[in-house]
Amino acid sequence: MDRALTLALRGPAHGPNPRVGCVLLGPPAPTGDRPVLGEGWHRGAGTPHAEVDALAAARARGHDTRGATAVVTLEPCNHTGRTGPCAQALLAAGITHVEHAIPDPGTTSGGGAQTLREHGVTVTTGTRAAQALELVRHWHHALTHHRPWVTLKTATTLDGRVAAPDGTSRWITGTAARTHAHTVRATVDAIAVTTGTALTDDPALTARTPDGHLAAHQPLRVVVGHRDLPPDARLHGAGGPLLHLRTHDVHHVLATLHEHETRHLLVEGGPALAGALLTHGLVDELHAYLAPVLLGAGPTAVTPFGITTLADAPRWHTTTTHRLGDDLLLVARATPTTEA
Amino acid sequence: MDRALTLALRGPAHGPNPRVGCVLLGPPAPTGDRPVLGEGWHRGAGTPHAEVDALAAARARGHDTRGATAVVTLEPCNHTGRTGPCAQALLAAGITHVEHAIPDPGTTSGGGAQTLREHGVTVTTGTRAAQALELVRHWHHALTHHRPWVTLKTATTLDGRVAAPDGTSRWITGTAARTHAHTVRATVDAIAVTTGTALTDDPALTARTPDGHLAAHQPLRVVVGHRDLPPDARLHGAGGPLLHLRTHDVHHVLATLHEHETRHLLVEGGPALAGALLTHGLVDELHAYLAPVLLGAGPTAVTPFGITTLADAPRWHTTTTHRLGDDLLLVARATPTTEA
Repeated sequence: MDRALTLALRGPAHGPNPRVGCVLLGPPAPTGDRPVLGEGWHRGAGTPHAEVDALAAARARGHDTRGATAVVTLEPCNHTGRTGPCAQALLAAGITHVEHAIPDPGTTSGGGAQTLREHGVTVTTGTRAAQALELVRHWHHALTHHRPWVTLKTATTLDGRVAAPDGTSRWITGTAARTHAHTVRATVDAIAVTTGTALTDDPALTARTPDGHLAAHQPLRVVVGHRDLPPDARLHGAGGPLLHLRTHDVHHVLATLHEHETRHLLVEGGPALAGALLTHGLVDELHAYLAPVLLGAGPTAVTPFGITTLADAPRWHTTTTHRLGDDLLLVARATPTTEA
Repeated sequence: MDRALTLALRGPAHGPNPRVGCVLLGPPAPTGDRPVLGEGWHRGAGTPHAEVDALAAARARGHDTRGATAVVTLEPCNHTGRTGPCAQALLAAGITHVEHAIPDPGTTSGGGAQTLREHGVTVTTGTRAAQALELVRHWHHALTHHRPWVTLKTATTLDGRVAAPDGTSRWITGTAARTHAHTVRATVDAIAVTTGTALTDDPALTARTPDGHLAAHQPLRVVVGHRDLPPDARLHGAGGPLLHLRTHDVHHVLATLHEHETRHLLVEGGPALAGALLTHGLVDELHAYLAPVLLGAGPTAVTPFGITTLADAPRWHTTTTHRLGDDLLLVARATPTTEA
């Protein structure tokens, strides 16, 4: 399963589908070792699922997969979507045992284990479940909660300012932090800002490599609010598609993005959008970039969102911290990470 | 010199005197090794200086110190203060070579190297100078700038709040961060708050061990402002001496504390005192404790201190970051730390 998890990581972090890895093992040799017949992983929507990829690899090497075991990081799917059902492919290949780390929560894709069992395949689950869930947390969250995983990014001074009193905000954080933020953009499905932020900062919302080129994957660019963008806005330039949602209803925003199969939304501002999401408990993860600067005045990252007393403030659970030059990134989640 | 630096660390971090370590080395043996005749370190004001301590240790072991080398982390002192001058003690002991890491910046205590040279002792300096300076930075800063090293402590949410809108602030940070803050208190000479903070929060400003007992060293407690404290204020309870400075002039505060031989002042609030110190560039180090909480509203750690545009905001230099449970401590200095 550890190998299958490693294979899964070769897939893209973004996209509508989860990252999945699969290892096909033959019957034990006299030494007790089980030969690896084939390995596979999912490369993104429209390409073969990990199980089918592993079966193809085994066949390409001339291996007989009858009686083999499939070790896969996620329950094999049961439905025909962009590709055929993996449960059927495994049955057709004569696989007799399947070990999967976590069940598929999808109402249409789930049920593969049941189908396999009905055809006489033994199916076990639960090995490395925490790691497997962590690997697919955005997708899993979206299928479970019917909305994207929402990461709120802030870039502030130590006293919580996103700009000085005169509005200057470039750059609060340093090069290392900004480079890191671009690597995160290259892993998400969509980035949202308000029209206010779009009009004030004229951001491009592109994912760029450290040398300034556009990254291979560009997230959907989402602008939330009623005002029009000027024709020469950088958001109209090169980058991901632009979606202008003329609403202030964050539930509507997330429902629309869910229809777009957005699994991971990165919210980069402004303070009113952050506040609205927090009001409704719709932020799953914080990325707080902090620069060692004090301003004493200036706008803050989040508008008031209904907290009047400390006991009512949600406590976030810090997952990691990164030193980025003189700056710091604190990553925290609304719910504690399951111990791996 | 590394051994001398290690010995120096045995001394207290607080107090009017610097931490100093000394190793006495005899002439080289035929193998080239130089025997250690004695080791010493300074245990705080009123006790022997490191050189005298090392000479005593050598004598106690029956060693002849004539012709020996003294390796010491700071230039031997030249004046009679609470104890006699080390330069004279080294001459009397027949020391013929002195290696010290950094010169003594004191107008009365400095000059030991010159005295030694005038009496035929060879004196070299500069080995491990950065580490030696780091070790005595509060004292060195006080003697150079005629005011204490000022550390500003803040304990805030990720959006820079020190309290919720209703004033609740206990506890923004968690147990690990609060325990850490008490260990810092036990190393400083004085802690300052405003009368506003004293009246609002009724802090004790004591240094406590994790089990709640008073630490061995209690810093001077300083309250800045004009208002009286109530007779039952916790500041009147067990802890360090209380000094009420009825002024808003931060220069006057620091000058008074310098007269008290305060080398390291920890400022814990309120926002106006922090702002006043920042206005005048009088903060040397920041200790920013950050809790993974967002409030959206509430008072911030620092009042406006004259910054209107980002380019005018001082950039701090991050020295270390510590994860403390879910919280984070960022330590930054006004000037970059010399590379060790």
